[in-house]
Amino acid sequence: MEALVQAALNHDRRALARLLTVVENRREGVDTALAALFPHTGRAWIIGVTGAPGTGKSSLVNALAKTFRAAGRTVGIVAVDPTSPFSGGAIMGDRIRMRDLAGDRGVFIRSMATRGSLGGLSRATRDVIRVLDAAGFEIIFVETVGAGQSEVDIARAAQTTIVVEAPGLGDDVQAIKAGILEIADVLVVNKADRPGADNTARALKAMLEMGHPATRTDLISHHGRLMPAESAPGSSAASIWIPPVVSTVAPENTGIGDLVAALEAHHKYLIETQALDGLERQHIEIELYDRLQAALMARLLKGVPGEVFADVIHRIQTRELDPQSAVDAILSLPDQSC
Amino acid sequence: MEALVQAALNHDRRALARLLTVVENRREGVDTALAALFPHTGRAWIIGVTGAPGTGKSSLVNALAKTFRAAGRTVGIVAVDPTSPFSGGAIMGDRIRMRDLAGDRGVFIRSMATRGSLGGLSRATRDVIRVLDAAGFEIIFVETVGAGQSEVDIARAAQTTIVVEAPGLGDDVQAIKAGILEIADVLVVNKADRPGADNTARALKAMLEMGHPATRTDLISHHGRLMPAESAPGSSAASIWIPPVVSTVAPENTGIGDLVAALEAHHKYLIETQALDGLERQHIEIELYDRLQAALMARLLKGVPGEVFADVIHRIQTRELDPQSAVDAILSLPDQSC
Repeated sequence: MEALVQAALNHDRRALARLLTVVENRREGVDTALAALFPHTGRAWIIGVTGAPGTGKSSLVNALAKTFRAAGRTVGIVAVDPTSPFSGGAIMGDRIRMRDLAGDRGVFIRSMATRGSLGGLSRATRDVIRVLDAAGFEIIFVETVGAGQSEVDIARAAQTTIVVEAPGLGDDVQAIKAGILEIADVLVVNKADRPGADNTARALKAMLEMGHPATRTDLISHHGRLMPAESAPGSSAASIWIPPVVSTVAPENTGIGDLVAALEAHHKYLIETQALDGLERQHIEIELYDRLQAALMARLLKGVPGEVFADVIHRIQTRELDPQSAVDAILSLPDQSC
Repeated sequence: MEALVQAALNHDRRALARLLTVVENRREGVDTALAALFPHTGRAWIIGVTGAPGTGKSSLVNALAKTFRAAGRTVGIVAVDPTSPFSGGAIMGDRIRMRDLAGDRGVFIRSMATRGSLGGLSRATRDVIRVLDAAGFEIIFVETVGAGQSEVDIARAAQTTIVVEAPGLGDDVQAIKAGILEIADVLVVNKADRPGADNTARALKAMLEMGHPATRTDLISHHGRLMPAESAPGSSAASIWIPPVVSTVAPENTGIGDLVAALEAHHKYLIETQALDGLERQHIEIELYDRLQAALMARLLKGVPGEVFADVIHRIQTRELDPQSAVDAILSLPDQSC
């Protein structure tokens, strides 16, 4: 495992792929590997890309990756599909991506689909990002499909979040309602050569002006926090980031330069306002919370005999016992291994 | 609180509304109230309704509620909007619903939007359903917006799940990809008077035949379980439920009779195969797991000083300590109140 980690840190692509598989599937040695990689992390710029199916996210990430590569920066791409939690299906954009970026050793692409719970996917995504970060990829795109809480959860791992819309995906108001506008640092109207693109862009801008949305860093502070609220970044009025709306036609590279400029501006804003530090601290808090929760639960399950659970569940089902009283009873058992 | 619970059990609508507010916002006395209500639960038929925005879910639930009401059955409706986790916005279908069903004392409607985490919303939804169940509503619809893990999580509370599609919401393949087909017990092509409805229905049927999707009860067994897998219901081949595809035009009541028949058939299937019992047991397992996790975490946070967390987070951020070692260190502290 040590040799594998070392090889991955030394840009050995096969070792990197194998390490990602270990991490993604939580195979033996995963914790050792992650601990060894950890000191090398924290250098990548992590960009989340999300939006409804059909908005052309994969092509957009593709175009962005090529532009950043042309500027000499290395790029990792993590494509996550949380909308297919049971099928574990492949990611549709893969073929396009492979065709355009294959053979470039400055790019590494990893597709992931949910196999278990969303919690498991969030954790696996975070760990895969961490491996690519440690391996020295300078910009890491995390692409998710859909428009729901899943994307918000995964977006938490990102520093800059792009929300992609496209004209003609049904009613504009509906699209916004479905939306994840609140988590956007940069909004993109992709497929801007289609009819209705101006309307979509206008609707998004109106929505932004109307809503005075909180900045992304404010939003993250709503989540299960271990730290006092006053430590939240972006609390001074001067540091508010207003998400710009950029129109693009990804396959023709139209608007990609503007989008890169908007992304760079957001990154600069994060650094200058020290929001980047605060974001990282919040990501760490969330991770620590998740890990503690999982560890506590594992310890409990080890300490309480299976028959006790079976009996409690039976008594809840027969309405002898209500769920909260059941919890209190289990937690007051003397022989927990804690 | 006791008087409020008693009044709600006696069909006092104002008491019921107040009790739902207590439960939804976890106000003082919530646990006492839920414990008192619990013996009266387990009688309602819980029907989940989900699908992308613009598919006409609210009108469909409306039409179903009117049909069930005409047959003399009482109906509760819980409308959940997990796609707007931060704005806490209103549910769009409310106005239509209120107009059609207002004044009918056999119907109770409750709208919920996320204010905190998805975990919080799942819990609040489960508790709101429980209150309506205890208050004697025979059929409870749980309507969620979107297409992602959020809906899967909320659908876990349902016994029968309807997935609603509509023609013309972008590419069919995309709609299916985005989809939540896997959790459907009954598929509906609503707005079936629109062009392309036949294609949508055909695509869904092809998808079902191709995919041989697991039954809903099988799927639930993938989640964090406390019980051995062999206790999962629906494991015999004879008990497989193939989701039917029903076309409807909700505002004109077209196809609603067929849909009700399909729902009743699924309910009958659940009862005859004893899958209903198994589903309930699995819902209880999931709830017990969630509640234990929350209780363990609360106990830990109480026992470990805030400065310890602040210090650990700082050391992770400076890469002195990796997250898993931090967890191990916190859990081995001697003075946890556990």
